[in-house]
Amino acid sequence: MDDKLMLMIPGPTPVPEQVLLAMAKHPIGHRSGDFSKVMAEVTENLKWLHQTTGDVMMLTVSGTGAVEAAIVNVLSPGDRVLVGANGKFGERWAEVSQAYGLAVETITAAWGQPLDPEQFRATLEADTEKTIKAVIITHSETSTGVLNDLETINRHVKAHGEALIIVDAVTSLGAINLPIDQWGLDVVASGSQKGYMIPPGLGFVSVSARAWDAYKTAKLPRFYLDLGKYRKDAAKNTTPFTPPVNLIVGLQVALRMMQAEGLESIFARHQRMMQATRSAIKALNLPLFAPDVAASPAITSVAPLAPLDSEQIRSLLRKRFDIAMAGGQDHLKGKIFRIGHLGFVCDRDILAAIAALEATLLELEYGGFIPGSGVAAAAKVLTQSR
Amino acid sequence: MDDKLMLMIPGPTPVPEQVLLAMAKHPIGHRSGDFSKVMAEVTENLKWLHQTTGDVMMLTVSGTGAVEAAIVNVLSPGDRVLVGANGKFGERWAEVSQAYGLAVETITAAWGQPLDPEQFRATLEADTEKTIKAVIITHSETSTGVLNDLETINRHVKAHGEALIIVDAVTSLGAINLPIDQWGLDVVASGSQKGYMIPPGLGFVSVSARAWDAYKTAKLPRFYLDLGKYRKDAAKNTTPFTPPVNLIVGLQVALRMMQAEGLESIFARHQRMMQATRSAIKALNLPLFAPDVAASPAITSVAPLAPLDSEQIRSLLRKRFDIAMAGGQDHLKGKIFRIGHLGFVCDRDILAAIAALEATLLELEYGGFIPGSGVAAAAKVLTQSR
Repeated sequence: MDDKLMLMIPGPTPVPEQVLLAMAKHPIGHRSGDFSKVMAEVTENLKWLHQTTGDVMMLTVSGTGAVEAAIVNVLSPGDRVLVGANGKFGERWAEVSQAYGLAVETITAAWGQPLDPEQFRATLEADTEKTIKAVIITHSETSTGVLNDLETINRHVKAHGEALIIVDAVTSLGAINLPIDQWGLDVVASGSQKGYMIPPGLGFVSVSARAWDAYKTAKLPRFYLDLGKYRKDAAKNTTPFTPPVNLIVGLQVALRMMQAEGLESIFARHQRMMQATRSAIKALNLPLFAPDVAASPAITSVAPLAPLDSEQIRSLLRKRFDIAMAGGQDHLKGKIFRIGHLGFVCDRDILAAIAALEATLLELEYGGFIPGSGVAAAAKVLTQSR
Repeated sequence: MDDKLMLMIPGPTPVPEQVLLAMAKHPIGHRSGDFSKVMAEVTENLKWLHQTTGDVMMLTVSGTGAVEAAIVNVLSPGDRVLVGANGKFGERWAEVSQAYGLAVETITAAWGQPLDPEQFRATLEADTEKTIKAVIITHSETSTGVLNDLETINRHVKAHGEALIIVDAVTSLGAINLPIDQWGLDVVASGSQKGYMIPPGLGFVSVSARAWDAYKTAKLPRFYLDLGKYRKDAAKNTTPFTPPVNLIVGLQVALRMMQAEGLESIFARHQRMMQATRSAIKALNLPLFAPDVAASPAITSVAPLAPLDSEQIRSLLRKRFDIAMAGGQDHLKGKIFRIGHLGFVCDRDILAAIAALEATLLELEYGGFIPGSGVAAAAKVLTQSR
């Protein structure tokens, strides 16, 4: 059915009607007093969302552009960086670092498993000459639904004393508690089409005072991604390059909605979505791809066994119930499907998705579950965790 | 009055209602069959608009990001580049080139005057060892309203035989005839909030076969701006990084509107807007900042003499008539104002703008014109050039 699509992918996520309508207004000039007022409010509210008193800058980029900005602004050619790689995005940050001539060392885990903080501790402790300039960690690995233990890894980085920590928070910011100032996270990058509840097209980067110190001597080439330019202009409530004004006006509305809900409620809601989804998937006797101890509140990956087929499940969900779920990426294509439950997602969405998944499994003649058991399990979590 | 703003700045430009409404639809997944269909149509129509059978790629960037992509994909550190600089944007491309460690040589003209093609001829002819790797030209200089003679400069580049030509077409593409294949332009960059009639947030880069050859050996670091990734994925009607789906759905509508109007009509309309505006400004005895021979069909800059004050004129136009015109940039701040007449602009808009300008001049007690003469002059052009 036209226009009846329900997005349950890890981005773009559903966008509230009031945000869509704000975006549909005629653009205003980006050098006007009216736009400066929008910038002032949005910048202030972004700091609230990032739990920081430091700088948070907006760039016209996708999430990858935001993480690249995080890297190129604080490092110089040949710098040694430690990259956590346990999925498509962790691996991508190693590739970006290589493209810029950094000396890249990866700490890996299998896709679907979390990074082991102990490996970071060992490598950082062994670096007595303090040659490691930065540690790059993907908080919520979008490709697998794994949540890495950023808090513990960051403690080891802090114990090292010299290395900066750079965080890919693309599917965590606005969905999972990430107290930037309290933890002392140096550079945190994220993207609009996730927890922010607006369409893709904006990237965000927060920068700590320590990271600004590193910026002063960082020699990687940059111009469009030069965060110093954004900082300077943000202080005057403007931008160095033409910003996507319609998206920013949409963001203004979305941030007000988030403030009305409150950070704790937002994080609790995402926890509840995750628990209800995982509980339902277990009741359906489908294998969860990420372990409970490292489950992302933003995405749940499911790895159905033969004769079930992930792509067939996704295709039927799309065709029969107008629900879009995401497939696996790279070598996981056809092996998993991913349920996005971040951003503008409510309890009803999870119930609808699980009910539709059950109907799809019935249609595929999967005999491994008692019909209704998934919805019952999800409902139980939703009821108990209110 | 709320929501009554009329944009006559050189970007963002007015956006048609049908584009705004398309953008206000719920986003769809960027890895879906539905989005692939949009990509296929948009990519095809972008080639039509660019008058090329070569590649035209879309990036989530502002115009500056698009030009930076044009530069970093075909050059290596230390490469000698010749940059035409006769305004804020020409100077910016010299800065970008310097930021990436290129050997930059500028050919300059005063802001408000066109680049002299003879200087390019002389420098290129003197380069018998063919050390010049690229020539970077701003076609329509947004900061001044000057149209540089790209066709002639490009002929000299072609005579050189080795150098690539990189074009900033940010306020020319979709407004001014720019036959990319016919002229053999190598890399042409532009931005969505101009002739494309959609809000800011998308950049476009066309790349010739010769430029792709240069890409193979070009060593400047890049990842997010790596055009090879976009080319590879565009062939499969997808994108390497999450694209701004709502903007692209808006672009789909805008390109259909442009095809219905036809390229010749679009270019003739912009010529008419320029001529009507310039004729009116002359009738009002206000000095035009750019000479007739180098006037951009996208922007007209006006340099009123004391006691008239550009900022006062702009402020009254905004306050009394809800018309936004642009001010001068950098050292031209307060010295000129700029009338944007590109994109979704019709004859009525020019008449309204000139009439409001006349009323503003009356309110400022400017005695240098016969009331009604500006509108009469504009109307005469509009009538004769149909």
